[in-house]
Amino acid sequence: MSRTPVNPARFLSDLHALRAFGGDSATKGVRRRALSEADIAARDWLARRIAEAGLEPRFDALGNLFGLAEGRSLLIGSHSDTQPEGGWLDGALGVIAALEIARAARETGGPAISVANFQDEEGRFGALTGSSVWAGKLSMEDADKLVATDGTAFVAARAALGDRVCDAVDPGRFTGFLEMHIEQGPTLHMSGEAVGVVTGIVGLRQVQVTVRGQQNHAGTTPMAHRRDAFTVAARIATALPERFANIVTPQSVWTIGHIVLHPGASSVVPGRAEFSLQWRDIDSDRLDRMEAAIMGLLSDMAAETGCEVTPERLRHDLAPMPMDAGMQAALSQAAEAVAPGRWRAMPSGALHDASNLAALMPVGMLFVPSIGGISHDFAEDTDEADLVTGLQVLAEAAARLA
Amino acid sequence: MSRTPVNPARFLSDLHALRAFGGDSATKGVRRRALSEADIAARDWLARRIAEAGLEPRFDALGNLFGLAEGRSLLIGSHSDTQPEGGWLDGALGVIAALEIARAARETGGPAISVANFQDEEGRFGALTGSSVWAGKLSMEDADKLVATDGTAFVAARAALGDRVCDAVDPGRFTGFLEMHIEQGPTLHMSGEAVGVVTGIVGLRQVQVTVRGQQNHAGTTPMAHRRDAFTVAARIATALPERFANIVTPQSVWTIGHIVLHPGASSVVPGRAEFSLQWRDIDSDRLDRMEAAIMGLLSDMAAETGCEVTPERLRHDLAPMPMDAGMQAALSQAAEAVAPGRWRAMPSGALHDASNLAALMPVGMLFVPSIGGISHDFAEDTDEADLVTGLQVLAEAAARLA
Repeated sequence: MSRTPVNPARFLSDLHALRAFGGDSATKGVRRRALSEADIAARDWLARRIAEAGLEPRFDALGNLFGLAEGRSLLIGSHSDTQPEGGWLDGALGVIAALEIARAARETGGPAISVANFQDEEGRFGALTGSSVWAGKLSMEDADKLVATDGTAFVAARAALGDRVCDAVDPGRFTGFLEMHIEQGPTLHMSGEAVGVVTGIVGLRQVQVTVRGQQNHAGTTPMAHRRDAFTVAARIATALPERFANIVTPQSVWTIGHIVLHPGASSVVPGRAEFSLQWRDIDSDRLDRMEAAIMGLLSDMAAETGCEVTPERLRHDLAPMPMDAGMQAALSQAAEAVAPGRWRAMPSGALHDASNLAALMPVGMLFVPSIGGISHDFAEDTDEADLVTGLQVLAEAAARLA
Repeated sequence: MSRTPVNPARFLSDLHALRAFGGDSATKGVRRRALSEADIAARDWLARRIAEAGLEPRFDALGNLFGLAEGRSLLIGSHSDTQPEGGWLDGALGVIAALEIARAARETGGPAISVANFQDEEGRFGALTGSSVWAGKLSMEDADKLVATDGTAFVAARAALGDRVCDAVDPGRFTGFLEMHIEQGPTLHMSGEAVGVVTGIVGLRQVQVTVRGQQNHAGTTPMAHRRDAFTVAARIATALPERFANIVTPQSVWTIGHIVLHPGASSVVPGRAEFSLQWRDIDSDRLDRMEAAIMGLLSDMAAETGCEVTPERLRHDLAPMPMDAGMQAALSQAAEAVAPGRWRAMPSGALHDASNLAALMPVGMLFVPSIGGISHDFAEDTDEADLVTGLQVLAEAAARLA
C-alpha cells in the first residue's frame, strides 16, 4: 500500500515490549509516572533500541531521551511517561513509531530522522515539563521547584538519572517535528476514519467564579427571600448553551468540573458557591466571543438575583497553536495516499509536546482513533490495524518532508 | 395593656444575666454548647433563680433542668444551650420567659406553672437530645453513644453534672407545654407584626441524589458526546420551581445545600455528582406531591440525558407536627388581647423541643420576630419591645389555659 519501508510487526512488537515497563498485569494499562523506576527503566530500554538502530542515544538533564541521526534531521516523537493509571498507547505510540521510522530509514538509506521521548508530559511534576524546558518556556530553576503530589521534588527525582545525563540537544539541528498520538476523543472512532491530521491545538481559558448570596436556615427562609448561591450557579450552567448558540462550533467545548458550596450542609441555604468554568476552541476570536458571552451571563445573573457574581480570570491561558501549513500538507497527502478517504483534518482538544515545539520549528501532528474516546485509563486502546495505518501515514509524511 | 402580672424589667434583666454565660465580649452573641462549662454554669444560675422563685429545681441525668411547681402544672420552657457561635435569644428567651411567668404566677397566687430548660437542643451531640430522651423517642443507651465533632462522648460530658442529677421528672404531672422562641426567619420582621402563633412544625424529607454520567477529558470530548453529571444536576436544580409550580405554597421550601463532583477537576468532565435535596412543608400530602414531582423530574432527566440518576431517600424524615388546637386558640386569643391586629398564625420552618413534647401532652408555640431573619449567628436580635410583647402574650395564654 505504501512506499515507506517501515516494519509493522517490529513496530507492534516494540510497542508491546515498552508496555511491560510498569504494565498492569490484569489489563493493557500502564503505571509509568515520569522519573519513576519504571519510567527510567523504559527509557534505558529505548536507549538500547536506539543504539541498535545506529542512532546516538542522548539523555539530557531532564530525562528527555533523544535518538540522534547525524547532521540535520527531522525529529519525530512524543513521550513515554503515563498518568498514574494510564493507557498503553498515549505517548508511547508516538515514541515507538518514531523509533521504527528512524530505524527503517537508516536501514534503507532513507532520510535522516531522529527520535524524541520527552519527560513528564503527563504532569507528575508540572505539565509538559521536559518539552517546556527544552523549548525555553520554563527555566530549569523553576522546573526544579516543582513538587509531585507525593511530595517528590523534580530536582530530587531527576538526580536518579545519574551519569546518563549528557549535554543538552540543540534544537537547531532539527528541520521540524512530527508527533503521532491517540486522539483521546471519540471523533475518529465514531466516524470510522483511520487517522486525523491535526490543524492546531485548541486554546484554553478559565475563570474561577464566586457567587455570594445569603446563607440562611433551610427551614425558616421562604423561597422568595432567598439568595441561594447554588441556584445561581446552576442557572449559569444551564444558560450557557443558549448564550453560546450563535458563537460556537461543534468543536468548541466548555466545562464546569469543580464546585464547592459554603457552608455545604443539607439544611443550610448556600451563601457562597465557587466553581471553575473552562472553555476551549481553536480560534482566538471565538474564545473572545465565548468570554464576552460568559461575562454577560454572569453580570445578568447578578442583576437578576441580587447575588454578587465575581469572575476571576486565571492567568494560565493557552493560546490556540496552529500546526505548520507545510507539515499539515505533507500529512494530508500521506493520509490520502495510505488511507484514501479515511482521514480528516481536525483540531486537538488536548495539549501535546508539539505545542511547545511549535516555538522552535515547524510542527505537525497525526491522530489515530481512541476506541470509545477513552484515554488516561487502563481501558484505553486502538485497533492494531489503525496503529499500523498511523505508522505508515507518518512514515510517508516523513519521506515527503525529507 | 395585659391582665397578667409579669415584670418586664425583671424578665429583661434575667435575659441579659443569662447572656453573660458564654457571652461574646464584642457582640451580643453567645458560645454555650450543650454540657460545656458555660452551659452548666448557666443552668446552675438558673437553678438558683428557680429556687428563689419558690419552685423546685430538678436536674435529670441528661442535664435537662426543670423548675417544678407543686401538683399538676402547665410546663413552659425551651433550651439555653446554643450553636458554636449562637445568638443571645434563640432558646434562652423561652426559658427566661417561663421563669418570669412561673415566678409572677407564684407571687400573685396565679396558676401552677413549671419551667423547662432542655439539653442539647442545638445538636452538639445529637439533635434535640434532651427532649428526645425525655419524650421516649431516643433511649439513654443510644444517647450515650452520641459523640460531638470535637470527639467528646455524650456519656462523658454528662458525667460533669455530678451530684446535681436527681430522679427523672414524670411528664404525667404536666397539663401541657408552651414554648416561646424567636422566629429564625424574616416573616414577622418584614410584616411588622409582633408575634406569630405557630400552627405546626413543618415536616422534612430528604433525598441524596447521585447522577452517574461519563468522566471525560474536558478538551477532547465534544459537547454532543458528553454525559456531564454536573450539567444534569444543574438542570435538576433549575427545573424544580416549574415542577413544583402547581403544588407548593409560599411556605413550602426546598434546598440543595451540598454537592460534590467527581473527580472534581477543572479539566475533567464530571462523571459523577452527588447532592442533597431537602424539602419541607406543613402538610404531609404536599410533601408527598413534592416528592412525586422530584422523582418524576429525576426520571425524566435520566431518560433525556442518558445519565443514571439515583435518589436515595434518607430515613430521618420528620413528619409535620401540628400544634394542639386548644393551645393555638389560647395563644391566638392572648395575641389578639395583647397585640390586636399585630400577630399571625404561621408554621415553624425549624424544629423545636415542642415537636418532641407533642407526643406527651398538648403543645403550643409562640414566635417573636427575628431582625433580618438572622439566627444561629452572633448578630441575632429582636427589639426589646417585641420580647416583652411575646412575654405578655405567653403569660396571658398561660392564664387562659390554667
